[in-house]
This record gives sequence, structure tokens and C-alpha cells, in this order.
Amino acid sequence: MASSDADVLKEINAFLACETPQAWLQRALCEPEILLIDHANCEKKAASTALRMMFRYVEHTDLLNKMSRLAREELRHFEQVLAIMQARGVEYRHLSASGYASRLHQHVRTWEPARLVDQLIIGAFIEARSCERFAALAPLLDEELSAFYLSLLRSEGRHYRGYLELARNSSSEPVEDRIVFFRELERAAIEEEDPDFRFHSGVPISTQAEDLDASGQFVVS
Amino acid sequence: MASSDADVLKEINAFLACETPQAWLQRALCEPEILLIDHANCEKKAASTALRMMFRYVEHTDLLNKMSRLAREELRHFEQVLAIMQARGVEYRHLSASGYASRLHQHVRTWEPARLVDQLIIGAFIEARSCERFAALAPLLDEELSAFYLSLLRSEGRHYRGYLELARNSSSEPVEDRIVFFRELERAAIEEEDPDFRFHSGVPISTQAEDLDASGQFVVS
Repeated sequence: MASSDADVLKEINAFLACETPQAWLQRALCEPEILLIDHANCEKKAASTALRMMFRYVEHTDLLNKMSRLAREELRHFEQVLAIMQARGVEYRHLSASGYASRLHQHVRTWEPARLVDQLIIGAFIEARSCERFAALAPLLDEELSAFYLSLLRSEGRHYRGYLELARNSSSEPVEDRIVFFRELERAAIEEEDPDFRFHSGVPISTQAEDLDASGQFVVS
Repeated sequence: MASSDADVLKEINAFLACETPQAWLQRALCEPEILLIDHANCEKKAASTALRMMFRYVEHTDLLNKMSRLAREELRHFEQVLAIMQARGVEYRHLSASGYASRLHQHVRTWEPARLVDQLIIGAFIEARSCERFAALAPLLDEELSAFYLSLLRSEGRHYRGYLELARNSSSEPVEDRIVFFRELERAAIEEEDPDFRFHSGVPISTQAEDLDASGQFVVS
């Protein structure tokens, strides 16, 4: 890992309230198809969220430029995931979204610029979590996926910083309280049990105790 | 104009039932700000429409790849329009959409793959009309906009062909009848009077007869 990647990861780990639970990583290794399909969906969703903001905040030139570039990058990633899926014979089927993003979005304030600030902070958390998960998954996966995830980590790190900077520039009020507020919601979404397994889901309900060794570490078969 | 541009324009002029009316061109020269703002909106809208199809037709790999690349290209154009607006001091304000696309979309059939075919054919018409309008506007505008519109003409021409190819590959039935059907609707949207002036609007209602010279050509002041 390049030293700049290590820097962004250090910053992201300080930004997030918790690491990805081991049980989620264990489940991810058992569900390579769902992981790829949901990853493709997340890239589309990220592009779509950026576009939605571009329709609403036309007077915010810096946001328009940043969101347009971000959406293009997410779409490029989508194409890369799609190519990997095709090469591996993974059929792209419809998959419901995880509840992660909607758990955060339901707390967005309804007046401006509070609404914009909240959406941008949530964007920063989603990108930060993606970055943290890519870093956690990379050493556990095959060479191709590992290299791909490390390359994504770099982009998601930039996106995280971009969202946070936009949030700070979108209000004359400090945004730290809202960061603290969403940090706790995000932690709960990641650490609580979750009936679905997705890229951003919480602790999978179905993880069996026998998959963990005596020290509580999971066993990769 | 490069010979490949002339080829694509010839193809597009044969595909469309009518040319852009002179009255629309005349109005466009009087409304440079609306033209730029609505152009920026059209680029966003094109990206957003492509993304919507990418959410719906996940099993259609060729469509996913083509639409993702198309959306990226439209977003790149959006950024270019935005830069021109900024350089010219054009303030990006909210502007209602023209009725053009919705006039076509209200005739989309509701069952698959007819629904997909219709959406793709409409996509081809919108891109073809954009291409035809860029070519018609380019000689009337300043050097910067003229060069920009000629460069866009090339992309929109590719997009038109891409949409049409996808439409033909998305159904075992011939799609020619639907092309004929939408060609007539598109012609009506362009040739009928339109209360709004937008990039894809019809004949502006407010064009005054005195702006036309004796031969019916409009007078550019």
C-alpha cells in the first residue's frame, strides 16, 4: 500500500466510529457474487445521488463540478466491476438495497442549508466506510480483486474528503455536531445485526459461532 | 466540418422528419443565457435517463456498458457547458424543462421489451435532434461556442447510433414501425408552436414577422 493510501486510511479510521466487524468480513468471503453485484449497485447509486444533488443545487458551482466528476468516476468503477463480473461469469440479477443509506438519510433535516449539509456529511460517511471496507477486504481476496479494491480505496478517499469539504463550505455554522450525530448512527448501522448481507450492511445474523476460532477470529476456509 | 461529421449529419437528417425551424434559430440567438442553461440541464437529464435504464435493465450487459459510457460523456459535456457559463458570467438558475421529451415519453408502451425499445428509440431521436441543432447553430455563433457545438455534434452522433443499435438488438421484432411512429411525434414537437423557448422546444410563439426578411429568412442583428 502506498504511503498516501496509508494516510487517507488513518484519517478515515479516525473519522469512523468503528471498524468493519470480523463477522461481516467472514460473510463477504462466502458471498463473492452478492458482494460484486451489490458493489456494482453501490457505484450506480453513488452516481445517481450525486446527479440528484446536481439537479437541486444549480447555484452551487463548486458542488456541481465536484459531483459531476465524482459521478463520472463512480460510473467508471461500475464498468470495472461489470467487467470483473462478466469475466467471472457472475450473472447480474436484481438485488434489494441494504438499509444502511436510508437509515442515515431519514435523519436529514428538511430546511436549507441544513439539508444540504446533512446529505454531504452522509456522503462523506458512505465514502469513508467504502474506503475502510475495501482496505479490510483487499488482503483477503484474490490478486485481481485485491488490486482493484486498493485502487478504489484511493478514489473513495478523495470522495470522502470532497464531500466533507463541501459540507464545511455549505454552511456558515460549524458542522461538527452533525458529524458527531451521523457518526453514531453510522456506527449503529454497521455494528448492529442486519438480516441482509450487502456491501454496507451490519453484522450478518446468520454467522455461526463455529466459524470463529477460540480467540474469536474467524476461520477462512 | 470533418467528412465523418458530414456523414453522420447526412444520416441524421434522413432519420429526422424535419429541420429545425428558422424561427427557433432566430430565437436561440436572442436567448444565449437560456440556451446555455437549458443545454446544461439537457446534459444532466441525458445522464440521468441513462442511469435510470441502468437500474432497470441489469441483465442487459451491452446496454449497461453503453449507457454508463454515455452518461459519463454527457457529464463531461455538462462540465464544459458549466465552464463556458462561468467564463461568460451566466448565472445558473432553475429553469423548467421543455415539454419535448415528455411528449415522446408519454407514448412509451408499458410491457417489455416494447417499453425498452420505445425508450431507446426516443433516446435516438433526442440525440439526433441535438446533433442537428448543434450543426444548425454552429455557423451562427461565436468561435468558442461554434467549436464546442461541432465537437458535441460528433458525440451526439455516436450516441444516436448507439441508441438505435440497442433498440434493434433489444427485440426480436422489427422496430421500424416504432421509429416511424416516434418520427412523426418528434416532428410535431419541433414544428408546432411552443410557449417556452428551450434547447428542444418547438416554434417560439413570440417570433415577430418583422424579424424575417422578404424571402422569409430571419435577420440576425
